[in-house]
Amino acid sequence: MTVRHLDAFFRPASIALIVAFNRRGSIGAILARNLFGGGYEGPIWPVNPRHRRMRGAKVYRDLDQLPQPPDLGVICAPPDAVPPLIADLGRQGARAAVVVTADFAEAREARGSALRAELVETARTHGLRMMGPNGLGILVPGIGLNASFAHRPARPGNLAFVAQSGAIITSVLDWADGRGIGFSALVSLGDMADVDFGDLLDYLAADTATRAILLYIESVGNARKFLSAARAASRVKPVVVVKGGRHPEGVRAEASNTGALAGSDAVCQAAFDRAAILRVFTLAELFDAVEILALARPPKGDRLAILTNGAGVGVLATDALIDEGGRLASLSRTTLTALDQILPSTWSQGNPVDLIGDATGERYRDALTVVQKDPGVDGILALHCPTAVVSALDTAEAVAAAA
Amino acid sequence: MTVRHLDAFFRPASIALIVAFNRRGSIGAILARNLFGGGYEGPIWPVNPRHRRMRGAKVYRDLDQLPQPPDLGVICAPPDAVPPLIADLGRQGARAAVVVTADFAEAREARGSALRAELVETARTHGLRMMGPNGLGILVPGIGLNASFAHRPARPGNLAFVAQSGAIITSVLDWADGRGIGFSALVSLGDMADVDFGDLLDYLAADTATRAILLYIESVGNARKFLSAARAASRVKPVVVVKGGRHPEGVRAEASNTGALAGSDAVCQAAFDRAAILRVFTLAELFDAVEILALARPPKGDRLAILTNGAGVGVLATDALIDEGGRLASLSRTTLTALDQILPSTWSQGNPVDLIGDATGERYRDALTVVQKDPGVDGILALHCPTAVVSALDTAEAVAAAA
Repeated sequence: MTVRHLDAFFRPASIALIVAFNRRGSIGAILARNLFGGGYEGPIWPVNPRHRRMRGAKVYRDLDQLPQPPDLGVICAPPDAVPPLIADLGRQGARAAVVVTADFAEAREARGSALRAELVETARTHGLRMMGPNGLGILVPGIGLNASFAHRPARPGNLAFVAQSGAIITSVLDWADGRGIGFSALVSLGDMADVDFGDLLDYLAADTATRAILLYIESVGNARKFLSAARAASRVKPVVVVKGGRHPEGVRAEASNTGALAGSDAVCQAAFDRAAILRVFTLAELFDAVEILALARPPKGDRLAILTNGAGVGVLATDALIDEGGRLASLSRTTLTALDQILPSTWSQGNPVDLIGDATGERYRDALTVVQKDPGVDGILALHCPTAVVSALDTAEAVAAAA
Repeated sequence: MTVRHLDAFFRPASIALIVAFNRRGSIGAILARNLFGGGYEGPIWPVNPRHRRMRGAKVYRDLDQLPQPPDLGVICAPPDAVPPLIADLGRQGARAAVVVTADFAEAREARGSALRAELVETARTHGLRMMGPNGLGILVPGIGLNASFAHRPARPGNLAFVAQSGAIITSVLDWADGRGIGFSALVSLGDMADVDFGDLLDYLAADTATRAILLYIESVGNARKFLSAARAASRVKPVVVVKGGRHPEGVRAEASNTGALAGSDAVCQAAFDRAAILRVFTLAELFDAVEILALARPPKGDRLAILTNGAGVGVLATDALIDEGGRLASLSRTTLTALDQILPSTWSQGNPVDLIGDATGERYRDALTVVQKDPGVDGILALHCPTAVVSALDTAEAVAAAA
């Protein structure tokens, strides 16, 4: 299967870095900085005909000068130069190549042109898998691999994020860093001339370092491959997707030109449903999903108990739960009786459990202890509104201790 | 009209503060601290039979000992004590009373009971308007009035926020403070025994200190009054609503018992549409609305131009725009030609205007200058994704300068 080949992207034995431009602040220079500075422990061989040293390492004039065949090639060069480089890499025995953008303007012109077809044909002929062109690259923080021109590194973790937009990857990186959230991999697919979502879903479903898979999709690539890979992946781990271009106005001109966007949003939704993929609609929701998947244990089921010190926010949380197809847990008679004993007589007598506005951290703790024991409760959401009469910190500590 | 009476809540000439309990950390003590510490310049007369001084002020034994008739009464007392106090206030000539909660547990029992009917009847008999019971109180930061037991003060500003949940008011206060957002008024309606959303909409529509009105509603109270007030208010300023209890599961037991929730969510939506109220669905969206209304000028129309350095986020923004009924502006031939001259040849050639990933602050500034002149553009959304090649700060400064 193709999955084996993809291993060269995620666990390369060695890397040839082919950077055409190396001026300060250029994409090539940032790529070299990231790759050499990421902590990757295998050999990195820079290739460039005009430079002697790069980041302290010896630069090879040509691919055939390398001490050994490279496993992965990372290419940052003008479009015209890429197909011969792919062919060279293939001849040397490389299994994979990441093609990032040498210059946004130049590389964009390659889209949809004969050059793209030539690229794909060359890669296939030489048995090479290719990521890109026009991607940001790939980051595998667990092994220190940063073959990207991202503006900041990623922390190691167990979420995989695969996106058709490099800009969305850098936005996620910024956001995640402040929250201490890490990733097993971040992959920018770029134009998806070869490697696409189906490939990545296949690979990441089997990747033990990945606990959940997040996707930003504009067009799925090979729809049949995507669907079967998504169904298989979602059986073993959560798959969350944001689909960009839900309205015709939002679809990029290029995407519709390539014909990759086969159908309407309803078709996509049906496909996501069939594949048991969780769809979210905004970057904010994707961020929420990332945070929950990174920090929380998956609940056993869909029956939620809500604890709150303000009825209004309990109402809003219930609305949101029902919107998303969840259920309010029915508290058992035992639970209700136990809550009666520890809560003011005016508590809500049901779920959401309104602990009343003067609820202390202690009251939260007692109620959590009771509700956690209810076999009809799969998860608990604890809400807190600031009040003048009790300390929010006490409540936060009580909830953290119970979790 | 009733609106004139409401002036005693928002611009009281004097205040009688009737606090039954005054122990440290109690609701009554916090209410006294807030009222005396808020900066209100009129006289505040505390009334309590057992204390001599409160916050440095002389305490009156009884309402009839006050030097003058109070304009507004603020009452924090057990439910049984409230109707006689309302009657006393009325006899003294007070026009309005805010009834906050003396003790959450005690006050809740008053709900739906004969006591509530007695309260309303007493207030009507004595020609007094009453806010509450069971509310957090009212804040009018512009005159330093803080007749609430909120945990922090509010900044002066020009947004009015009216909520049926005190907890949501305190959450909004926390959030707004960090962003420097101010309010013309924050009103917690509590059980809405008398003053309800219709009254407040009438008053705030005419209030020159209020530029926009935000509502958190669970039940509208008098539906006919609400609709006519909402239609009148939304003609003169934006009215934004979050409706809690959209699903039967989310409806509080008390609310459905009082019968105030007349119909399904579809009925509410129809009413909001008819009244030209903007509905949002989550607290996060309400916060967005607050921030936009507080900090941005209203656009001339619904034709938006989007500037971005990442196509993916342009796609997502377009989706969100179309979802909400907005439109992408059609850029004029003049604009397109001008953009051709300042952007790389590979720019998106339309709206969203993809400035390409290496866009500098200067490129943003140039493009904004061109797009701002297009008569077919009512508003511009500038998006920026972090990149390693340019400074986000430069871009932010360029956009801020253009705005």
